[in-house]
Amino acid sequence: MNDHSSVGDPMKVFTAILAAVSLVASAQAQERKTAAQKVAPAIVQEITPALAAFTDEILFGDVWRRPELAPRDRSMVTIAALIAGGHTAQMTGHFNRGLDNGVKPDEITATITHLAFYAGWPRAISAVDAAKDVFAKRGIELDQLAAESSEVLSLDEAGEAQRAVAVDDQVGAIAPALARYTNSVLFGDLWRRADLTPRDRSLVTISALIAAGQSEQLPFHLNRGMDNGLTQIQLSEVITHIAFYAGWPRAMSALPVAKSVFAARTK
Amino acid sequence: MNDHSSVGDPMKVFTAILAAVSLVASAQAQERKTAAQKVAPAIVQEITPALAAFTDEILFGDVWRRPELAPRDRSMVTIAALIAGGHTAQMTGHFNRGLDNGVKPDEITATITHLAFYAGWPRAISAVDAAKDVFAKRGIELDQLAAESSEVLSLDEAGEAQRAVAVDDQVGAIAPALARYTNSVLFGDLWRRADLTPRDRSLVTISALIAAGQSEQLPFHLNRGMDNGLTQIQLSEVITHIAFYAGWPRAMSALPVAKSVFAARTK
Amino acid sequence: MNDHSSVGDPMKVFTAILAAVSLVASAQAQERKTAAQKVAPAIVQEITPALAAFTDEILFGDVWRRPELAPRDRSMVTIAALIAGGHTAQMTGHFNRGLDNGVKPDEITATITHLAFYAGWPRAISAVDAAKDVFAKRGIELDQLAAESSEVLSLDEAGEAQRAVAVDDQVGAIAPALARYTNSVLFGDLWRRADLTPRDRSLVTISALIAAGQSEQLPFHLNRGMDNGLTQIQLSEVITHIAFYAGWPRAMSALPVAKSVFAARTK
Repeated sequence: MNDHSSVGDPMKVFTAILAAVSLVASAQAQERKTAAQKVAPAIVQEITPALAAFTDEILFGDVWRRPELAPRDRSMVTIAALIAGGHTAQMTGHFNRGLDNGVKPDEITATITHLAFYAGWPRAISAVDAAKDVFAKRGIELDQLAAESSEVLSLDEAGEAQRAVAVDDQVGAIAPALARYTNSVLFGDLWRRADLTPRDRSLVTISALIAAGQSEQLPFHLNRGMDNGLTQIQLSEVITHIAFYAGWPRAMSALPVAKSVFAARTK
Repeated sequence: MNDHSSVGDPMKVFTAILAAVSLVASAQAQERKTAAQKVAPAIVQEITPALAAFTDEILFGDVWRRPELAPRDRSMVTIAALIAGGHTAQMTGHFNRGLDNGVKPDEITATITHLAFYAGWPRAISAVDAAKDVFAKRGIELDQLAAESSEVLSLDEAGEAQRAVAVDDQVGAIAPALARYTNSVLFGDLWRRADLTPRDRSLVTISALIAAGQSEQLPFHLNRGMDNGLTQIQLSEVITHIAFYAGWPRAMSALPVAKSVFAARTK
Repeated sequence: MNDHSSVGDPMKVFTAILAAVSLVASAQAQERKTAAQKVAPAIVQEITPALAAFTDEILFGDVWRRPELAPRDRSMVTIAALIAGGHTAQMTGHFNRGLDNGVKPDEITATITHLAFYAGWPRAISAVDAAKDVFAKRGIELDQLAAESSEVLSLDEAGEAQRAVAVDDQVGAIAPALARYTNSVLFGDLWRRADLTPRDRSLVTISALIAAGQSEQLPFHLNRGMDNGLTQIQLSEVITHIAFYAGWPRAMSALPVAKSVFAARTK
């Protein structure tokens, strides 16, 4: 958060508002405590009980239960944030949780492959190791995983052609090979693979961008995501969810970008 | 560093200055070498002796000894930078060094919990593992760690009310749940916990932001930090210290932000 | 990529272009498949065969073979990106590949030491561990590694003097110790060490900056790199190569910076 200091002089009305907010928050906290189940690992409960309480009462007792984004989608968002951040230690838990929440094995492997392009090869290769162990323990067979070949989706061809021309124009002048890979491999091949829906590709791309603080690419992908069926409410919830998995500052930096994209689309 | 090429034509006076600087630097280096103790691990001395020399003579022989920031505070800054960067391999060493420098066990656990919000849950959970082993080896009992509940600090209530209204205004319109978590959990609960002073919460928040390159949130937190008692000299030293723990570019990007915050406060 | 939506209305001509692009891409893909050797680890082929195919056919079958950047330089770029990103799991493979491609052992250790300053001490220290094992297995003796002392290169002294004055001016006012370390240690000592050529120091610095998304320092270092002998074609290829090792968004964010530096130098 920045520039909060720009708000005018404090007044008594604020103190009253704060008191009210605190009262509501306190009632909510009590309610959460009742509802909370122990999700935090035993070691977190032992060493950092306050963090365990936030984990159980807020993150899993409240955030994950919010209906604005389905648990399956929250798992996709979380998995994307973990891969983008290189959080291998947390992948086992969240790959399992994702499978429990309805993410299919081949959606996990397709997400890893997709994010090789958006978070880099090393992040993806490290995720493969974690996925392998999870699949093995659950008895998931290789034929349930995304295959090398995939049906080729036909996207919005006019829009794609436009995009390809823009890439050639903007990228090609400086780095022609990168423009070629972008058009023929990234968008011409990867985004057309059927092992992940375009909507889910947008979901994990946006999540990875927010988690890694790459706001410059967000406007294009928020728009593409909404074209692919993600709603404003879902995207706001993605930002909120990622605040917990990549830290508040990443979410706060994504907010104004989302705000301006949303505003431009409702004109 | 950028735009250094914008300075005018070279002149002989510069060469003279440089010669003088080199002379002083060389004398300083000799002095450092005498004072330096071996801090770099044996393997670093063996494989990268130049890095070991920089570690012993500059980082520990000079930076850590500068009186502008106490060793205890340098440990807090370093620990925050390590957590923010996910440098688990270095945590054991620096948790131990921190404890030796007067950081209390419950300040380490409170810092981990605090940074869950600023660097994301996965970073915090990974730090818990490293802390557990350090505590166990030193015979630190669980009752010395930050408890789940904490005394509730009363902060500058008028300022907090303003901040809460600004959050509702700026965040609430796009992501109402995130605004609620920000006001009722992050600032309404975490920042009011007594297991870390507001000054130390600012210190570790600012350190994490600089280390992760999140300049957008820096103006708010530099101001909050100075309101909480951190001085301009201490904050400049935090930036200098973090140059070594997160790399020069992070420090260089934080400098102009600090400069403009400092300037605005001295008006 | 951003702002691609700003291009005008779609037209039939685009669809025709796309069809042509797809045809060419498909022919290229077939050609690549024939040429490709299995580089992806067995586990990647098993769990994520599509990622393995992209690895074998595109990354190693095409990118690494492009003559615009020598394999030895690609290894330097990759090693720098891995160190900057903290990808320790991939270092063993790429340290070995680098040595096979002609990178000398002391260039690896000098790169690690150099990047301590640009990516932070923890990243460098973690890389030392990976390097040690690789050197041991290959029977590389310690006397082949960069020594503590090094011959001192004389750089462009007038330019250096200018740079030093600019640092004193811009950094010194806020953080005098950081200005001193920058002039006497970073540029006065590290950059003058002879165990890495200035051209290679620029190459790994630029690679680390792009991989970590630190565009603010890029203009200075792209210019310095070109002064040190790197060409525009090589730098464009560095960006392209890093798209695969740090993700597309990092490359896309570096492109406009490179574009404006290139443009300013050709005036």
